[in-house]
Amino acid sequence: MEKQNKTQTTTLPSERTRIRRIAENANNEKAMLYSIIDEAYLCHIAFQDEKGMHCIPTACWREDDFLYVHAANASRLAKVLGRQQQICVTITHLDGLVLARAAFNHSMNYRSAMIYGSFEQVHDPEHKAKSMERFMDKVASGRQTEVRPGNHAELAGTSLMRIALVETACKVRRGGPKDDAEDSAIPVWTGELPLKQMHQPPVPDPANQTPTPNYVTSWYQNT
Amino acid sequence: MEKQNKTQTTTLPSERTRIRRIAENANNEKAMLYSIIDEAYLCHIAFQDEKGMHCIPTACWREDDFLYVHAANASRLAKVLGRQQQICVTITHLDGLVLARAAFNHSMNYRSAMIYGSFEQVHDPEHKAKSMERFMDKVASGRQTEVRPGNHAELAGTSLMRIALVETACKVRRGGPKDDAEDSAIPVWTGELPLKQMHQPPVPDPANQTPTPNYVTSWYQNT
Repeated sequence: MEKQNKTQTTTLPSERTRIRRIAENANNEKAMLYSIIDEAYLCHIAFQDEKGMHCIPTACWREDDFLYVHAANASRLAKVLGRQQQICVTITHLDGLVLARAAFNHSMNYRSAMIYGSFEQVHDPEHKAKSMERFMDKVASGRQTEVRPGNHAELAGTSLMRIALVETACKVRRGGPKDDAEDSAIPVWTGELPLKQMHQPPVPDPANQTPTPNYVTSWYQNT
Repeated sequence: MEKQNKTQTTTLPSERTRIRRIAENANNEKAMLYSIIDEAYLCHIAFQDEKGMHCIPTACWREDDFLYVHAANASRLAKVLGRQQQICVTITHLDGLVLARAAFNHSMNYRSAMIYGSFEQVHDPEHKAKSMERFMDKVASGRQTEVRPGNHAELAGTSLMRIALVETACKVRRGGPKDDAEDSAIPVWTGELPLKQMHQPPVPDPANQTPTPNYVTSWYQNT
């Protein structure tokens, strides 16, 4: 893996992250990597244990150049990631279906980020508490001061793990179809059918008796 | 793995698919498995090669009790899946953020499907052509008759692979927060902030000179 430091605005490909298929879709801008992670609530982690390969979805958030996840200490995810095995984390946003003149040239618009390496456990209680607050900030900014914070037992029973954003690969496709010149006269609609993960109207819990905070009232407008 | 046949409406858990964490969220209804796959355009596949673990997003569709993917023959994905190694395919739909009274009890609503096993290559040209048409039907029903279908070289250069929906596990969380009784007096808004993948207005290609078909005009209404 090539050396790099935090002040760089791009990442350098390694043998694992050099994009070979449709290489023009590779994007090594750190700003792109950050935006893909920050827009996501979920990542998928590929790892192996004695039963084989697994692909597990789990919540994630970013702090500086680390991706964080958490899991119950007793969970398989915490146990396996705690062994610091080499894994791969992927986040994918699907942005649209691309309709071309030839069936073969149909495609999808997307932004994906892959992170290679191993997770490290965060044991420091202050770091753990702060990172869990950061996660709450991502979910609902300002809510941390309103809820009951994690107590000692809850935090002690939770594994916080992070992976450095060092060996990463983003791939992005945007725009319309790319048909072959000889297909240009085929009379069929071409273009993009876009998709977007949107906020829907909040659903208050029936037991709820408190005023609605701003981050809830603005949820439906703020997609 | 326990034996099962196509007429069953539920799947039986194996050692790999028995859900241990929050087991009440396990769902082994075939109808749930089908709906998770049919609503998805993308899956993530966890596999291993000589460089380590990978988690690759790729387009997918379902026919009966098989999940299909395709890839260029020369791609890593086609080569690795063609070796019939044991892999794991996961599809996750994130349906909302669940806000509880205690930080620790915050959660997410989701529907996830995991499929274990190995892919098999589909070599029969007729089967290949039919399955690619089925994929087009999923993307835009009725479009197959309007576009130029795949020619011999295109189909020959594409690997079509399928995995049987036999060793599968779905996990579903729905509804509001589940707080501990001792937190019930904490005065904070609780409920769900829902998320949904929505269709956005179609973007015609600038070179487009044909009438807009129904599957495009209805796209934005049909989320």
